[in-house]
Amino acid sequence: MVRIALEILNHIKSPEDLKHLSYEQLERLAFELRAEMVATTSKRGGHLASSLGAVEIIIALLRVFNGKDDRIVFDVGHQAYAWKMLTGRLDQFSSLRSFGGISGFPKITESPYDAHDAGHASDSLSIALGYALARDLSGKDNNVVALVGDASFTGGMALEALNYIGHRQCNMTIILNDNGMSISPNVGAFSAYLGKARLSKNYTTIRDGVEDRMTSSGRFGRLLMDTGNAVKESVKQLVIPGSQFFEGFGVKYIGPIDGHDIHIVEEMLLHAREVDGPVIIHAVTKKGKGYPPAEKHPDTFHGVGPFDIATGEVVSKPGAAPKWTNIFADELIRQAEADESIVAITAAMPAGTGIDKVYKAFPDRCFDVGIAEENAVTMAAGLALGGKKPVVAIYSTFLQRAFDQITVNVALQKQHVVFAIDRAGLVGADGPTHHGMFDLSYMRAIPGMRIMVPADSEELRDALVTALKLDGPVAIRYPRGSAPVAPERPRELWEPGKAKLLREGEDASILAVGDMVPIALAAADLLEKQGKSVAVYNMRWAKPIDEEAVAESADRGPIYTVEDNTIVGGMGSGVLEVLSASGKAARCTRFGLPDEFVQQGTVPELFESLGLSAKAIAQRIAEDLG
Amino acid sequence: MVRIALEILNHIKSPEDLKHLSYEQLERLAFELRAEMVATTSKRGGHLASSLGAVEIIIALLRVFNGKDDRIVFDVGHQAYAWKMLTGRLDQFSSLRSFGGISGFPKITESPYDAHDAGHASDSLSIALGYALARDLSGKDNNVVALVGDASFTGGMALEALNYIGHRQCNMTIILNDNGMSISPNVGAFSAYLGKARLSKNYTTIRDGVEDRMTSSGRFGRLLMDTGNAVKESVKQLVIPGSQFFEGFGVKYIGPIDGHDIHIVEEMLLHAREVDGPVIIHAVTKKGKGYPPAEKHPDTFHGVGPFDIATGEVVSKPGAAPKWTNIFADELIRQAEADESIVAITAAMPAGTGIDKVYKAFPDRCFDVGIAEENAVTMAAGLALGGKKPVVAIYSTFLQRAFDQITVNVALQKQHVVFAIDRAGLVGADGPTHHGMFDLSYMRAIPGMRIMVPADSEELRDALVTALKLDGPVAIRYPRGSAPVAPERPRELWEPGKAKLLREGEDASILAVGDMVPIALAAADLLEKQGKSVAVYNMRWAKPIDEEAVAESADRGPIYTVEDNTIVGGMGSGVLEVLSASGKAARCTRFGLPDEFVQQGTVPELFESLGLSAKAIAQRIAEDLG
Repeated sequence: MVRIALEILNHIKSPEDLKHLSYEQLERLAFELRAEMVATTSKRGGHLASSLGAVEIIIALLRVFNGKDDRIVFDVGHQAYAWKMLTGRLDQFSSLRSFGGISGFPKITESPYDAHDAGHASDSLSIALGYALARDLSGKDNNVVALVGDASFTGGMALEALNYIGHRQCNMTIILNDNGMSISPNVGAFSAYLGKARLSKNYTTIRDGVEDRMTSSGRFGRLLMDTGNAVKESVKQLVIPGSQFFEGFGVKYIGPIDGHDIHIVEEMLLHAREVDGPVIIHAVTKKGKGYPPAEKHPDTFHGVGPFDIATGEVVSKPGAAPKWTNIFADELIRQAEADESIVAITAAMPAGTGIDKVYKAFPDRCFDVGIAEENAVTMAAGLALGGKKPVVAIYSTFLQRAFDQITVNVALQKQHVVFAIDRAGLVGADGPTHHGMFDLSYMRAIPGMRIMVPADSEELRDALVTALKLDGPVAIRYPRGSAPVAPERPRELWEPGKAKLLREGEDASILAVGDMVPIALAAADLLEKQGKSVAVYNMRWAKPIDEEAVAESADRGPIYTVEDNTIVGGMGSGVLEVLSASGKAARCTRFGLPDEFVQQGTVPELFESLGLSAKAIAQRIAEDLG
Repeated sequence: MVRIALEILNHIKSPEDLKHLSYEQLERLAFELRAEMVATTSKRGGHLASSLGAVEIIIALLRVFNGKDDRIVFDVGHQAYAWKMLTGRLDQFSSLRSFGGISGFPKITESPYDAHDAGHASDSLSIALGYALARDLSGKDNNVVALVGDASFTGGMALEALNYIGHRQCNMTIILNDNGMSISPNVGAFSAYLGKARLSKNYTTIRDGVEDRMTSSGRFGRLLMDTGNAVKESVKQLVIPGSQFFEGFGVKYIGPIDGHDIHIVEEMLLHAREVDGPVIIHAVTKKGKGYPPAEKHPDTFHGVGPFDIATGEVVSKPGAAPKWTNIFADELIRQAEADESIVAITAAMPAGTGIDKVYKAFPDRCFDVGIAEENAVTMAAGLALGGKKPVVAIYSTFLQRAFDQITVNVALQKQHVVFAIDRAGLVGADGPTHHGMFDLSYMRAIPGMRIMVPADSEELRDALVTALKLDGPVAIRYPRGSAPVAPERPRELWEPGKAKLLREGEDASILAVGDMVPIALAAADLLEKQGKSVAVYNMRWAKPIDEEAVAESADRGPIYTVEDNTIVGGMGSGVLEVLSASGKAARCTRFGLPDEFVQQGTVPELFESLGLSAKAIAQRIAEDLG
């Protein structure tokens, strides 16, 4: 594909420059922004499809508002690539999502234009509400805008915020960027609601006196006359279902409008800015807009790895090992064939968690509740109470949303719910909002929870079979990406709290979990070359911790724990707790993620930078052993 | 007050017996149930006002449904006292909320009639949805009902569930018990919505062909003719706003109906049972119904301690020490007077957290977002981003709902939000759903978090002043009830991670936090009598842990940590982590709440039963020291 010349984009030094462009030039600009984001993500991967869909909205936002003094709050932040390029980060854009490069999400430390650190869904209304309340208390008059995808409205926090926004009636604008997708097509009644609105005729009403303005010579009135093909309906025909929902919450509703028409979006933003109280603008966009492969497969191009621009084919490494996600899904299907009480639940991540594969085999027994982790977990408790065996597959970082539900609705009632915690540990390019570095800590604190951490493909299968055979709450956590492949063998039921000694040793012991087991073994190899004989355990269970393995290790010498969870309250702390209870006074040093948020980068880069490579671990142990 | 004879209630051996009573007898029964719950709670305390309001609904539920095979799911469970008495627990009712007695909430281990362990708000729709999905998969045809208060609909999980319920269209009935209150009067647009519905004329419509049935001779049609004073309006007048909201979600709406009219509630339940898909019955009730003091002060009688039945006066112990909550509120007012950037946020607990007092002083700077902890925390992050200093006052157990938000929206962005974690540790009679026994574990895992644990009234004031002076995320956790009163002194800013040595000693050290500090001192006194000289530290900070104090203690001899948090990942684990990093090999034994859910009872009873009394701690230490 020929590289597009950035005839206009290269001259945008600040958003001010946008204000002098004609609509024709703005259309060219939109084209260039898209070309640039396709070019960069084709190399770096990224959240392409959403960003492609939001180009015109972002141009309009930066023309209407002052991006620094007004506060534009992105939900999730998947839509932000055009924003980054237009607010002074074009030069750095090629470093997107790389170690030391710019973030894939808005980030306050990266630019004064970014209003908050986005990453998790459904938070923009609350952040914007906070900004608006702060403004009002300070007697300022800046504008506050939330840009939020339709899928984020299935998340409880967004609805909690909408409820309070309606109550407070503070001035703010919400742009509902409705592409009818989350990562996968949306589920839920709310989605159906918007669907009805989308199907209604193109255009735009607003309640409370707007009808009067429509026929006056005011801005909005003129707009209705001016915009040609877009505005053709009389006000009387504009009653649409979307309005009932939002106006029920006390938020004035405009829409649906064409979110790819810069002029219309601008005019509606200008209008909303003048209206008292909260206003929602329902803008319909196309996910993947402008890049045909992404338009055709918005699901694939939601979060995509490197791809061939010409064909849209995702670059896959030849002979790459199977992914943890797929191994999990395949085994779950196998188990579900044998046990019809097994059901599977996910929260808007059917492909990411492999539940889409399970769905193909057992459509009646799979539930995708949308971005709604709280409901996913408590509904699972209800299914368990009703005699089913629910497997809840959610990314580690998003399962944080359901900590209370896991505790009170599942564990307190001793319900047999299996948590398949995908993307545990470091996730790479998505960075600090997405690393799954807390699950061992927050899950360990829950009474009755058992946590398995498989170290290879066969162990994941064993862990799942074991989890389904146990009773009460059980979790399995495994990382993003490919699993070390072990030779296929018959399934082994794991004894709770029983580690596996992988390597004998005499001077010291390394106790590792999951992905860190191969690193621990490699470190032991390196140590052997230096004459140190170090035992290595695959702990398998982060809870309960194997007391015998710990006692045995304490008798052997110093203990080193290795995990890809924060070292605060993680597996290593569990070992310390067991040691403490045993009364044995062995030294125990913990390797793990530091007690700080970890930046983006490839996992090997990050491990290297954090002193968690086999070499770094071996070196520290060697020094320690003297 | 004369004890009411339970002429009818005493003969109800199972819910079957209800089916043979006349409406006149049922009215008497309702009276007796109310008298009994007033009598018991006047001694034991409890959630009286909500339970008084739900008597008729519960009688109707048990007449229409089979309480064991059909599943009746209570939200929160504050409404369940009549349910308990009518489902075989009348004899045990006087043990309500006591150590070893029956729970104040529905509890599956207590009765086959209880469908889940209620306690936290907004979970009933998800639990009921799970039950309904499980039923459908199993090809059964039992009914599923959720009984949920209006306030619970401000919680995000309820709306997440409603969205999916509308999508799935499975058969279930939701009774919206609308008393216009949560604990305090409700906030939010949803509440205004229901308000409009309540103001509309009394009665009841349902979409999809019901109009036809209305005029037919079917049950519903006849009902409209039969029920006298209640049904006077024609169907045409029945269009009410509440319906738009719920029907927007795809849930059929009936109401509003008089929730104190057993006949009407029954008829609507029978009708809803026959309708395909989810149905919501909007029943209007009066919180505190039938007991004038509770009707007049539903807020006071929401969760009430022992009171005088005749006067409704709450029994207060003469000279009782001031409560932690009030000390916090008073100091917050003092600080807010000096610093106008301070704002306060609570989630439907203004009185419980003391924010009501702050509100009286600074109404513009206090925000009660309703039952919406996720929004409370993320909105606080927005307020902080907007230049304010938010203090978020939420009970420990409910703050669990916002673990992700504290992590991603506050801590990742290093925003200065102060978390005032009330009801930390054991709360007493509310039991396992309400104990705040996890906060030290889940807050410690969050990078950048600082956690203060004051030990007396003056320390709480110091901690708050310190928290407001720091930057970034800071938490203060303190228990329910009265604080040890210290003599007033000038405010002291605490140095982060600096403990206070309270008592010198030579043989060993006790490291304690908060409420456990006086217990630790008492244990040291007991040990002294046995010739053991034990140092006692008030740790003050659960994060960061004072490394010097730990090192000093390790040099002294064995270390004993004492906390009222789970011992998994709590303050004691923090001490182990510090010890581990220091390389010192001292023995360290942790006293704290066990890794299991703790039952109800008074706090001293529970400490006694858990081996956390001063005597028990001293004894274990004495044995250990030999």
